[in-house]
Amino acid sequence: MFELLKSDSLTKARLGRLTTAHGAIETPVFMPVGTQASVKAIDPRELLEMGTQIILGNTYHLNIRPGMEIIRAAGGLHRFMNWDKPILTDSGGFQVFSLAKIRKIKTHGVEFRSHIDGSPLFLGPKEAMEIQRTLGSDIAMVFDECPPHDAPAREQKLAVERTIRWAGECREQPRAAGQLVFGIVQGGSNPVLREECAKALVPMEFDGYAIGGVSVGEPEPEMFRAVELTEPFLPAHKPRYAMGLGTPAQLVELIARGVDMFDCVLPTRVARNGTVFTRKGTYILKNAENKMNFGPLEDGCECFACRRFTRAYLRHLYNVQEILAIRMLSVHNSYLFLKVMADVRAAIANDTFSDFYRDFIAGYRPTQRVLLARAAAKER
Amino acid sequence: MFELLKSDSLTKARLGRLTTAHGAIETPVFMPVGTQASVKAIDPRELLEMGTQIILGNTYHLNIRPGMEIIRAAGGLHRFMNWDKPILTDSGGFQVFSLAKIRKIKTHGVEFRSHIDGSPLFLGPKEAMEIQRTLGSDIAMVFDECPPHDAPAREQKLAVERTIRWAGECREQPRAAGQLVFGIVQGGSNPVLREECAKALVPMEFDGYAIGGVSVGEPEPEMFRAVELTEPFLPAHKPRYAMGLGTPAQLVELIARGVDMFDCVLPTRVARNGTVFTRKGTYILKNAENKMNFGPLEDGCECFACRRFTRAYLRHLYNVQEILAIRMLSVHNSYLFLKVMADVRAAIANDTFSDFYRDFIAGYRPTQRVLLARAAAKER
Repeated sequence: MFELLKSDSLTKARLGRLTTAHGAIETPVFMPVGTQASVKAIDPRELLEMGTQIILGNTYHLNIRPGMEIIRAAGGLHRFMNWDKPILTDSGGFQVFSLAKIRKIKTHGVEFRSHIDGSPLFLGPKEAMEIQRTLGSDIAMVFDECPPHDAPAREQKLAVERTIRWAGECREQPRAAGQLVFGIVQGGSNPVLREECAKALVPMEFDGYAIGGVSVGEPEPEMFRAVELTEPFLPAHKPRYAMGLGTPAQLVELIARGVDMFDCVLPTRVARNGTVFTRKGTYILKNAENKMNFGPLEDGCECFACRRFTRAYLRHLYNVQEILAIRMLSVHNSYLFLKVMADVRAAIANDTFSDFYRDFIAGYRPTQRVLLARAAAKER
Repeated sequence: MFELLKSDSLTKARLGRLTTAHGAIETPVFMPVGTQASVKAIDPRELLEMGTQIILGNTYHLNIRPGMEIIRAAGGLHRFMNWDKPILTDSGGFQVFSLAKIRKIKTHGVEFRSHIDGSPLFLGPKEAMEIQRTLGSDIAMVFDECPPHDAPAREQKLAVERTIRWAGECREQPRAAGQLVFGIVQGGSNPVLREECAKALVPMEFDGYAIGGVSVGEPEPEMFRAVELTEPFLPAHKPRYAMGLGTPAQLVELIARGVDMFDCVLPTRVARNGTVFTRKGTYILKNAENKMNFGPLEDGCECFACRRFTRAYLRHLYNVQEILAIRMLSVHNSYLFLKVMADVRAAIANDTFSDFYRDFIAGYRPTQRVLLARAAAKER
């Protein structure tokens, strides 16, 4: 199911192939996020053109709207949204703990109220797996508890205990035909909890392992630490998935630390704010310097937007709130994430990943927030 | 420049070909509207796929944003927006009279304040033609005065006088290479004014003639009357363009009355409100009956959206405010307008237009507003 094709000799980077019910995925892979059964502003043809191998769907959101009655009648999520390639669904755990306003943690899941209309809902291992079975995703995630990064030690410990227990319960639920299930390791930045959680999940023989409890507001050094504390305890012959991350540079850093799979809303979310991702970092399209710039969003980029439109044109469209601006920024940003992954795979295959890694990080200017977090970490 | 290929024997419908600097246009033709240098929510590839022959750009809006400095630096509107087929630009007259808040009509144009930032601007025959020269449109429109449909007789008369005078001034301005210029007939629903305006403009030998002063809030019978009062005075060997109209059924009605060209924001505007155009009329996508409808937006439609997505899916996307919903409704609605024109052209060519006309109107259910206006007109 997962073939480890090559391990880099100088870093922990890995080249792999994950076979699912809807086809094979070459790893390292970036998975565009289609929370509500659509990757925001992008259509399936554009996704295929930019080299998308697998997309994400969201259990929490899809269960509320459109609801499982419609998904079931449509014949599952693939047919509902007309996407024939693999889909990974998260379990809804993250949203229950981040979005739902009122919640009560019980032995077999969480009672909460919908963030849309306040109606009472219950999500636990049994329910999350049943929804994912109805969605018919190729990869289902276990239902976990994901506390904020600054949660007190006792809460982190309780979350790990519940995550382990719920993972066991998820393991026992029926699956859709050919559906893979991944476990999720929690534990914040606590080495003992990370090790304990990983060591409890590995014997359950999940098809892959995710590192959760990252992308929950923690500074970058803490995020790297969480991954470094978890990775050594994960089996080499299974794919590793860092949830909800990150910038292109962070993805390359995490690949060098042994991670194979990523998902992130950043490329489409910042597109809607007029931010452009490049191999050198981000820039703001609205800035005056782009007013008369008749070059593409990023020099040398081969995406649909860069082959057709100039910065000056897209800046104008963004300023006058034309949807095509957001469409094309979403396409460009997503393409960049996917293309960096393709370049990483080629570099690992050619034994040049450590050079690629060094050059990519040297060329990428992180945001001020990331730079400040790094400086603070060094002072400690 | 305009070839009248065929005239229908039973109606006034005409088959023609208009040759422009960026290629030939088969008429009757529908022109999607790209007010701000983008047909809302649709990209140029999608426009080409749906059979778009020519699009509209807007002098008033483009002059404010991005402004002519940027358009000039880009090398004109075609290059700015990466559209190689014909473009028609309106003169800004309509917007000056409908959008600009404070205005003062002078001998050589209108002083007004931008609806965006209140900055003082002046637009008249000279300015409008100069902007359209910079835009480099294939068809430029003269600067006219377009009063509301309920304007008093004296105002209508003054508007016609100014429109004639300004048309003469436009005629004398320099043009972009190969640029055609169309005159615009005003006069509301007053037979004398319509005749007077047409008879004054025809000797000026414009490349085509538009019927203006329609789509300004008048009930449908009054709109048809304005066209019927104007058409007999227009030369047969020049294209006729009814500005800002209408529904698919109205387009077919107007073709039967001798009109060749149309533009309208309806297909993309109502898409953003979740309204779907079909050959049977419109429907509201949100309605509960579409909840579990796994057929296309319109049965038998071959558009990009109908070949890929179901009503149930697009209804879900619309409900959760995903951009893909508005994109696909805009594509479907625009495709329908273009396809009806293609069917009309085939019917005229095959001598079956009068059958097509009868069947199309019989099958199309107008909106309640149109039905009420028709009933009121019959009672008179």
